[in-house]
Amino acid sequence: MKEEIRIALDCMGGDNAPKIVIEGANIIASKQNDIHFLLYGDSSEIDLTLNNFPKLKVKSTTIHTDQAISSDEKPSIALRRGTKSSMRLAINAVKDGDADVAVSAGNTGALMAIAKIVLRPLPSIERPAIVTSIPNQKNSGTVLLDMGANVECDSDVLYQFAIMGHAFAKIALKIKNPKIGLLNIGSEDVKGNDAVRSAAALLKESELKDNFYGYVEGNDITNGTVDVVVTDGFTGNVSLKVIEGTAKMVSEVLRSAFSSSFISKLGYLLARPAIIKARKKMDPRLHNGAMLVGLNGVVVKSHGGTDAIGFANAISVAISLVKDKINEKISNEIKIADE
Amino acid sequence: MKEEIRIALDCMGGDNAPKIVIEGANIIASKQNDIHFLLYGDSSEIDLTLNNFPKLKVKSTTIHTDQAISSDEKPSIALRRGTKSSMRLAINAVKDGDADVAVSAGNTGALMAIAKIVLRPLPSIERPAIVTSIPNQKNSGTVLLDMGANVECDSDVLYQFAIMGHAFAKIALKIKNPKIGLLNIGSEDVKGNDAVRSAAALLKESELKDNFYGYVEGNDITNGTVDVVVTDGFTGNVSLKVIEGTAKMVSEVLRSAFSSSFISKLGYLLARPAIIKARKKMDPRLHNGAMLVGLNGVVVKSHGGTDAIGFANAISVAISLVKDKINEKISNEIKIADE
Repeated sequence: MKEEIRIALDCMGGDNAPKIVIEGANIIASKQNDIHFLLYGDSSEIDLTLNNFPKLKVKSTTIHTDQAISSDEKPSIALRRGTKSSMRLAINAVKDGDADVAVSAGNTGALMAIAKIVLRPLPSIERPAIVTSIPNQKNSGTVLLDMGANVECDSDVLYQFAIMGHAFAKIALKIKNPKIGLLNIGSEDVKGNDAVRSAAALLKESELKDNFYGYVEGNDITNGTVDVVVTDGFTGNVSLKVIEGTAKMVSEVLRSAFSSSFISKLGYLLARPAIIKARKKMDPRLHNGAMLVGLNGVVVKSHGGTDAIGFANAISVAISLVKDKINEKISNEIKIADE
Repeated sequence: MKEEIRIALDCMGGDNAPKIVIEGANIIASKQNDIHFLLYGDSSEIDLTLNNFPKLKVKSTTIHTDQAISSDEKPSIALRRGTKSSMRLAINAVKDGDADVAVSAGNTGALMAIAKIVLRPLPSIERPAIVTSIPNQKNSGTVLLDMGANVECDSDVLYQFAIMGHAFAKIALKIKNPKIGLLNIGSEDVKGNDAVRSAAALLKESELKDNFYGYVEGNDITNGTVDVVVTDGFTGNVSLKVIEGTAKMVSEVLRSAFSSSFISKLGYLLARPAIIKARKKMDPRLHNGAMLVGLNGVVVKSHGGTDAIGFANAISVAISLVKDKINEKISNEIKIADE
């Protein structure tokens, strides 16, 4: 007998489920032994795909359901009607101790609503958040939260986000002594709104005071000025999508430049290996895996449009969070802060 | 006698004043006749530079002051102590009818504070805003406001931003029938905060209802999904800086990729003309020139770190806004909306 990490997978969430979910799980199963997958979804479909992956097959159990939550389902409806859905069952497995972590590429709002109801927030945590890492110039990744679970946040909530983001940076990104920045529209003390200014005051007085860098601005996220950027869910969600949009625009403009003449096409061919390496550095798949942080249980959200490599990365994040006991660490830091 | 546009320039604002201000003015003076510049700043310094630009010299008047507003001056202090500053005198010139427009690359907060006090908001406008255009994939530019003048905005304010952004898109970007989007964190009706949802309801009932596209998300700014993106000054400022940071990260990563080997360097050399063309498409200098919109008078803000080409672009924006009577158009649209 040996300890194994049990991972509940929602096989009906995301644009290409169950295919990319199972292929992603197989990537992990092929290189890691101490794991077991619980696959929630349409068993006939899952088992058909599983036949191609003998390594995964021996490390997984399929649990059948035919109820899926669609990507445009309202969270309130998903909560009420989705009690037998693959997403709900995966989260229930965490609650019941059958799994250590759940991973889903499905509807983010529904996932957060279900996780909050089923798992409940950690003691002293007012508002669970969504935290993820963003590619930056320093190559280490910038932790950003909240990604959209909480549209409006007061200073206490932002302060708790800082604690949770700090723990996530240490565990998921292996950053030793993470620096924390509060997202604002200038570095001067007078800038911003009340919530941001009061959160800065709280952080300056807290156990994390040596980790608190101060205010940061939008460009600091990709500059890597700090390791953790704290903001409300509205600004965090907009920022993430602005980054995606800008990266897409720049590569689109470059792509059409490279194909504009024979000579530039030739230039592209010569530089191609280097460009591919550069793209890899910013590959969003390798930053895939956002955590629903602040709950009694670990839930990881994969991007809905990712592929098997991206989904495997989300599973890796989930495994790190479980192994390194993220929730225990957050609870301890919150306890110290409360004392 | 013929009509000429009179442009007041703050020759003490920005990182490289008065040099880039005067060089920028000279670019415009060399190709346009019906203009006259009022140059506010240190006359000895200005006149020394002017000697190199005979074309500009005959189209300009220097007004001496030795009082400058620094880039980190608090707006309240700038207001109180900067009554003889080059920035204040340039705005006074607009107020007094000596100039049709003022252009400054100086401290944004001070510029807005002074402009608000000196020029006062247009009738019915609650909150003047800063509006600019952002490079997008469609090559037309996306109008974005507010860029940071108003941290918190209610639905009426957002609604007025939509009217002002619509007018700016028509005049500064020559877009015939601009589509307006409200920045949000999802396209569903239930998303966002009260201010955004109520602003959407106002727009759906307004004269601009046919121009109102609905909610847009962060990636839509650079995608060019709509022509005008409306948001509060906090989110707008963060978005602008996130775009700058991401573009910088992508080009930095590519730059180091191109120089990683002899072959990729050669590839870069071959593709260089195409890459330069692509860069030009996204050149922030060609999008330089933000308007302080909603005031009794036209004030244009240039990026503080721009060069002469960028400053010349800001002057061009200023000229368009005056020629096309932006404030008259905004006042008319506001009047219709109020009826």
